Amino acid sequence: MSTRVAIIGAGPSGLAQLRAFQSAHAKGAAMPDVVCFEKQADWGGMWNYTWRTGLDEHGEPVHGSMYRYLWSNGPKECLEFADYSFDEHFGRPISSYPPREVLWDYIQGRVKKAGVRDYIRFNTAVKQVTFDPVSRQFTLTAYDYANGRSTTDTFDFVIVASGHFSTPQVPAFAGFERFSGRILHAHDFREATEFQGKDLLIVGSSYSAEDIGSQCYKYGARSITSTYRTQPMGYTWPKGWEERPLLNRVEGDIAYFADGSSKRVDAIILCTGYQHHFAFLPDELALKTGNRLWPLGLYKGVIWEHNPQLIYLGMQDLWYSFNLFDAQAWFVRDYILGRIKLPEQSEMQADSAAWREQEEGLQSTASMYEFQGRYIKHLIEHTDYPSFDIDAVNQIFLKWKTDKKRDIMGYRDKSYRSVMTGTLAVPHHTRWLQALDDSMEEYLRETAGKGDVNALRQR
Amino acid sequence: MSTRVAIIGAGPSGLAQLRAFQSAHAKGAAMPDVVCFEKQADWGGMWNYTWRTGLDEHGEPVHGSMYRYLWSNGPKECLEFADYSFDEHFGRPISSYPPREVLWDYIQGRVKKAGVRDYIRFNTAVKQVTFDPVSRQFTLTAYDYANGRSTTDTFDFVIVASGHFSTPQVPAFAGFERFSGRILHAHDFREATEFQGKDLLIVGSSYSAEDIGSQCYKYGARSITSTYRTQPMGYTWPKGWEERPLLNRVEGDIAYFADGSSKRVDAIILCTGYQHHFAFLPDELALKTGNRLWPLGLYKGVIWEHNPQLIYLGMQDLWYSFNLFDAQAWFVRDYILGRIKLPEQSEMQADSAAWREQEEGLQSTASMYEFQGRYIKHLIEHTDYPSFDIDAVNQIFLKWKTDKKRDIMGYRDKSYRSVMTGTLAVPHHTRWLQALDDSMEEYLRETAGKGDVNALRQR
Repeated sequence: MSTRVAIIGAGPSGLAQLRAFQSAHAKGAAMPDVVCFEKQADWGGMWNYTWRTGLDEHGEPVHGSMYRYLWSNGPKECLEFADYSFDEHFGRPISSYPPREVLWDYIQGRVKKAGVRDYIRFNTAVKQVTFDPVSRQFTLTAYDYANGRSTTDTFDFVIVASGHFSTPQVPAFAGFERFSGRILHAHDFREATEFQGKDLLIVGSSYSAEDIGSQCYKYGARSITSTYRTQPMGYTWPKGWEERPLLNRVEGDIAYFADGSSKRVDAIILCTGYQHHFAFLPDELALKTGNRLWPLGLYKGVIWEHNPQLIYLGMQDLWYSFNLFDAQAWFVRDYILGRIKLPEQSEMQADSAAWREQEEGLQSTASMYEFQGRYIKHLIEHTDYPSFDIDAVNQIFLKWKTDKKRDIMGYRDKSYRSVMTGTLAVPHHTRWLQALDDSMEEYLRETAGKGDVNALRQR
Repeated sequence: MSTRVAIIGAGPSGLAQLRAFQSAHAKGAAMPDVVCFEKQADWGGMWNYTWRTGLDEHGEPVHGSMYRYLWSNGPKECLEFADYSFDEHFGRPISSYPPREVLWDYIQGRVKKAGVRDYIRFNTAVKQVTFDPVSRQFTLTAYDYANGRSTTDTFDFVIVASGHFSTPQVPAFAGFERFSGRILHAHDFREATEFQGKDLLIVGSSYSAEDIGSQCYKYGARSITSTYRTQPMGYTWPKGWEERPLLNRVEGDIAYFADGSSKRVDAIILCTGYQHHFAFLPDELALKTGNRLWPLGLYKGVIWEHNPQLIYLGMQDLWYSFNLFDAQAWFVRDYILGRIKLPEQSEMQADSAAWREQEEGLQSTASMYEFQGRYIKHLIEHTDYPSFDIDAVNQIFLKWKTDKKRDIMGYRDKSYRSVMTGTLAVPHHTRWLQALDDSMEEYLRETAGKGDVNALRQR
């Protein structure tokens, strides 16, 4: 009987895993018996936008934290697939910071070409995974909402590719139960125009705070007040945006901060991060970690050391993303295909401890993405994933940081050069701050005629 | 070994079950080994208000659908406990439609007096229940978030008291993914003042639509447009509230209705009901039903016919509520204590079928609460739960319907007489439409001095 492999999630990392297997198969390797379980009706994970929040039509927690009008907040040149370039997908240069729909289309382009859709069971939520130490098999129970039935299957390997930006970390502050406006976590943020003309309080100082605040500013919020625990983000914010120390409490519609200052606000958005949460896993199989570059317990960042038949993709704090998932997926594939052998558990743990020690020594921002770049390089050396110039990508990260520092509302108008194809991105036809329509149709307008756009959309 | 009983949920029905056992125990009966699992940090279920929506601090779906400023939408005289009156709790007559905090306090009063808090494991979410047909025992796995550990226990009986107003039924309408405002289900509604000055679309024509619309009107929404599928609610709405046929689609911020009319709206609240959803139960143990007076599969409305060790409380469409849960809990208690014997499965099913046939013949509104009253009477006849004048309660329901019909914004100013104590409710010091402060302190102001209020609060 062929090896049975479950992949949980058909987002960027789950799809990378499907593409990895298909790629080896196309070169003559055996294809294991792969089933990918996807809770949503379509693929793309976070990039498959939904207006829903809270619980979905089936009563399942909504996975998506994606919001309307999101444009990439890092250059696409840092996340490009090494085996499927933006040039190949769009047939012409595009800008460095595309909106959500354009990136979703790009992700889909590769897997459509690979023809892996039939491996996916859509509308199917994984409810429980257990491991039998005698048979050494997993039993996976899922609910197939399309057909209204529970399914149970056994697998030799389970690959958790369900992401870690779906379960919000939601702190409480005194007075929230009596605050006279909306309180939401970034996970439930969808539509910036809801906050037009509002005085907005954003709790947090990481990417969500920066990006959701910028969105709301762009779409007409009256003011943004963001709070930090240790240090301000420190960008040169536009008029109407100020940073304050941590929120202390609210009374009515007045927010009080750690420095004793206060401000009247209409709504509060908690940009306070996410939990690694796996409702379908028993405690002993669940990865427990904060959001960091080297979570412990995962050999080479992916293989659960206590039970190497369990795999986690993409659980690291992410500088790199799509091509990081690729490097992991190719490595995992070759491990499952028997091409990569595991050492003893103690050796795996020692290897992980060494990476962790490095991670703990990192001080500068640059050292962090360089560390992650080294990790990707290390994984790629073991497989046939196309090598690419990671040092050059690190340089793009550096440039990106500098460009952001210089102009937080303008950095998305910059262009970078692909390390995969050498193509220099073209400026978008509209500056980001003025580009209110984030649709792919609008994005591809002007340089392509109407007919071309439709041709591209039909891929 | 004594009988082991799990109760899932410490809301009104779970607490009724604890009180039922304690009441028998106080009269000399054996107390089974009872564990009540409560996901929240405190008891009261829906009445334990939380500002949280979506997922809670532990990544668990938020149970609560309660919103601020909620006042009972039916007379308290219809839900009064037969063994613990409002008079006993408050020490003086209060009005017929108290706000949320006051009812929460009342619920708590009885169980504090009964001393059952120690049976409850708070901050503990039930993750899975399985039944072993050989040992004829349930295995219940829960996660204790207070201590960060998973627990597994076996039980002879499992009583599902987790309610059926926690998992929203959320339909999609064309254009939602591009609507330029907030879309939420009633489950996530918390704070009416968020919608001050807004044009609000409410999808639905049942209790949530009526009450959330009324709240928003009271707290300053600019207009309310509510939609119906079959027929309008038909109340004499205040200026600014109109009913339209079903929503067809939205385009930008314009809602289009089934009659071809349209309206610009700022936000959409889906008052489209709830699902009976039990994430912790395997498919074969899960009750599947719409919200109706007689769900099938439950002998006497509570005992799962396919496995009588599994019990469901309060799963019916509710006219009666707290005292209905009591009647069920006392019946279930006496069944578990061996005082009530079950007939053969076929006989149980025939009994349920007969109730269902009656239910299906109901036409008028009055016939529905009369049916539920007969059901309660039937249960009470089997136990020592204090009998009460159900025909008189039915008369209050009738009066309530008439008063609502006459004045939808004023019916909460009416007073009714308790069938338990004969006490006539007193009018509240402020008319509902003007009573913006819903706190217990404000509610008890004026007729009691400050000291009395504090004394009451400390119970």
